[in-house]
Amino acid sequence: MDTPVSRRAVLAGTAVGIAVPAAVTVSGATTGVTRRITLYAEALPGGLFGYGTAPGQATVPGPVLEIWEGDTLEIDLVNATNQRLSIHPHGVDYSVDSDGSPLNDSFNDPGETRRYVWHTREMSAAAGRRFMPGSAGYWHYHDHAMGTDHGTAGIAKGLYGGLIVRRRGDILPERQFTVVFNDMMINNRMAPHTPMFEAHQGQRVEFICIGHGGLPHTFHLHAHRWADNRTGMLEGPADPSHVIDNKNLDPGSSFGFQVIAGEGVGPGVWMYHCHVQFHSDGGMVGLFLVRNPDGTMPPGAQAAIDRFHAHSHSHG
Amino acid sequence: MDTPVSRRAVLAGTAVGIAVPAAVTVSGATTGVTRRITLYAEALPGGLFGYGTAPGQATVPGPVLEIWEGDTLEIDLVNATNQRLSIHPHGVDYSVDSDGSPLNDSFNDPGETRRYVWHTREMSAAAGRRFMPGSAGYWHYHDHAMGTDHGTAGIAKGLYGGLIVRRRGDILPERQFTVVFNDMMINNRMAPHTPMFEAHQGQRVEFICIGHGGLPHTFHLHAHRWADNRTGMLEGPADPSHVIDNKNLDPGSSFGFQVIAGEGVGPGVWMYHCHVQFHSDGGMVGLFLVRNPDGTMPPGAQAAIDRFHAHSHSHG
Amino acid sequence: MDTPVSRRAVLAGTAVGIAVPAAVTVSGATTGVTRRITLYAEALPGGLFGYGTAPGQATVPGPVLEIWEGDTLEIDLVNATNQRLSIHPHGVDYSVDSDGSPLNDSFNDPGETRRYVWHTREMSAAAGRRFMPGSAGYWHYHDHAMGTDHGTAGIAKGLYGGLIVRRRGDILPERQFTVVFNDMMINNRMAPHTPMFEAHQGQRVEFICIGHGGLPHTFHLHAHRWADNRTGMLEGPADPSHVIDNKNLDPGSSFGFQVIAGEGVGPGVWMYHCHVQFHSDGGMVGLFLVRNPDGTMPPGAQAAIDRFHAHSHSHG
Repeated sequence: MDTPVSRRAVLAGTAVGIAVPAAVTVSGATTGVTRRITLYAEALPGGLFGYGTAPGQATVPGPVLEIWEGDTLEIDLVNATNQRLSIHPHGVDYSVDSDGSPLNDSFNDPGETRRYVWHTREMSAAAGRRFMPGSAGYWHYHDHAMGTDHGTAGIAKGLYGGLIVRRRGDILPERQFTVVFNDMMINNRMAPHTPMFEAHQGQRVEFICIGHGGLPHTFHLHAHRWADNRTGMLEGPADPSHVIDNKNLDPGSSFGFQVIAGEGVGPGVWMYHCHVQFHSDGGMVGLFLVRNPDGTMPPGAQAAIDRFHAHSHSHG
Repeated sequence: MDTPVSRRAVLAGTAVGIAVPAAVTVSGATTGVTRRITLYAEALPGGLFGYGTAPGQATVPGPVLEIWEGDTLEIDLVNATNQRLSIHPHGVDYSVDSDGSPLNDSFNDPGETRRYVWHTREMSAAAGRRFMPGSAGYWHYHDHAMGTDHGTAGIAKGLYGGLIVRRRGDILPERQFTVVFNDMMINNRMAPHTPMFEAHQGQRVEFICIGHGGLPHTFHLHAHRWADNRTGMLEGPADPSHVIDNKNLDPGSSFGFQVIAGEGVGPGVWMYHCHVQFHSDGGMVGLFLVRNPDGTMPPGAQAAIDRFHAHSHSHG
Repeated sequence: MDTPVSRRAVLAGTAVGIAVPAAVTVSGATTGVTRRITLYAEALPGGLFGYGTAPGQATVPGPVLEIWEGDTLEIDLVNATNQRLSIHPHGVDYSVDSDGSPLNDSFNDPGETRRYVWHTREMSAAAGRRFMPGSAGYWHYHDHAMGTDHGTAGIAKGLYGGLIVRRRGDILPERQFTVVFNDMMINNRMAPHTPMFEAHQGQRVEFICIGHGGLPHTFHLHAHRWADNRTGMLEGPADPSHVIDNKNLDPGSSFGFQVIAGEGVGPGVWMYHCHVQFHSDGGMVGLFLVRNPDGTMPPGAQAAIDRFHAHSHSHG
């Protein structure tokens, strides 16, 4: 659940003009390259399903897929389950063959392997001073075929993950966390079994937030805030974006942002949670542990974690 | 449901400095003009009601009304029904007499004709470097008097439509579609009877999205994306806007955007739907048919349409 | 409920380069100052609770707290109730001791006084051309400890209020209104007992909108609109922000904006309401009375107010 950058599916070439943090493993290339991966959809304990990059490695959520604007990603999806399923992306370009929908006869029968191709592109000039948007964004992928023609059973059971398309010059994070609000759960878990994300104070961490299921939600992070724009940072003093710490995270929507862990507030245990009150009370809450800069535990942090595990969801 | 530009209620003067697509019928004038139309509110089969620009022509949704920033629109609303109703706009300027609300005694009794006047204006300087917003936007209009003091019965039964106020220099589309998420329906229809919008690959199409009723929704369009700002296009490389393909479409809200049909993805049948899973499963889904550039059907498109009509909302 | 600026808890130093409206009482200082206040949490009639700046002065919502970016606010919170409670802010910086959460053992037992410290800061440079966001925004504060570990009972019963962090150069309003959508109520009231906000035509008024509870909402204001960015005004002709008059106001979210009362539309009685139809029908509606420039009542206004009190929520 706590995904250091070194464990994510890093597909990106080196950013242009940006110092890549030492912890980030990146492979060569610049633009317009085609990358190929194999994903395995598998059944997991507890009736869940997941995507993984190797047999027996499926997780909920699936691996974060990252590419640069201009790249193409070819995915060979192996359906190792006994149910119809697919992979459908948001934000990127794909032909009807890669739609991932039963409508377009684009899915994997049980046992079947099928190739899905996702293209991306940079912004392009329109009339006047305007530009048609490019692909850069904090997107996501999910099943679109299990249970119903919209993949409702697959999504409910864990077939989803983050997809990032970065623009040249974007800043890369040191740590990366995926938060999926899916009905009354976070990453298909409820407190106190929700993910505890960890970083050292001062590290640049990236949150990828995805909404799924049938209920409206709002994502709130304690003691940190971000700009409500593409990157979560301001483009300059005239950037008019809202700065927020609470945002709608409704089905099919996604956003992402970077914060400096503990900046201006210090280390400690910070909650992230749905701000719909009966959702947070019901278990849609997790912890963001900001350790001391040297990685040691700050005073009071373990006690807070223990409280969370002991009685977080009853009246004190 | 599929509204070519030539059928919409074009009220706009010619855009300044923009090549107007040949298909767009526009009538002279530049700024500050007053336009007058008559709208007819009528009962329709199935218990519905609609607005139309001529007797017997009412539709659900009503006609798209378009004006340029600075123009005034005078509407003589003829109530051809046996119920109290009105027309209430979003985004434009109106005095209490044109509020369309029972609160301000602004509505039509059965059989009554009443004039509503909507003004618009350009942005104006405030203190500092700031500007008070002008009227340009993808807005909408709806009943505010049938059934309750908020027009809940009128809205539920189809009394709504799109209203666009364009800024000088805005790009005009070649085709235009109105999508209204109203409780569990799209334009008061459920799949497979929801609108199938059509365009040729490469055409500039405009979506006007409006939320109504009592439920939260998210609008998703397959294989196309837009900037989450006023026009749906980026103002330039430094425009910090989110680029999205899924957005909240909750009661009373509206947005619009333009895409190039099939750009980067090719022709085919693409879904648009509410991404709340049980809403899409329940019928909040329609089709966007992107034909070949010459207007012929692309391979597989008819088969997809047939599947949609045969069994789109059951387990495959 | 109608909060003239002179009654709000003005904590701000003088804005740089901005003419401060004469009605605003401000105390010296420029940047980086520390301000101290005492807040009293008290039980109110009807099972409500409120925050106030003096004993016996608690209100629902609590006082608007305002500071400049860079300032620190120290709050001594006196718990004059017989229940556990706290104060938790959005948008500002605080250590775990001031988190206001039971998770971090940060709350007031009955009768206890506890100090909470909120810091703010300006934007700071990141890599590339980007900036980490500063604290300026329309934020809010609320209980995070009564009833559950998320303060669900305290929020339900009125323990909330607005918090504004202004950036140097921001324009100050002449009047200021706080609107909290909390389950099916506005400021824990239902029509016709919801707040009637008042201004003279031409006055610059500020709305602070806050969402709470367990339900999704949309805030709509008749005959006025704003830019969907940090200030509600455009930064210039190239500001790409949506201009809106209806916006999601879901639990934990907040936004604010300024409008010129009656600009382009004239004086009169204007509704603000939740646009979820059964919410507005059920009483989530209030009035914004725009008086004539000289403060007298415009024609028809009293009649509208009388209608609102007599039968606003039944079929006319």
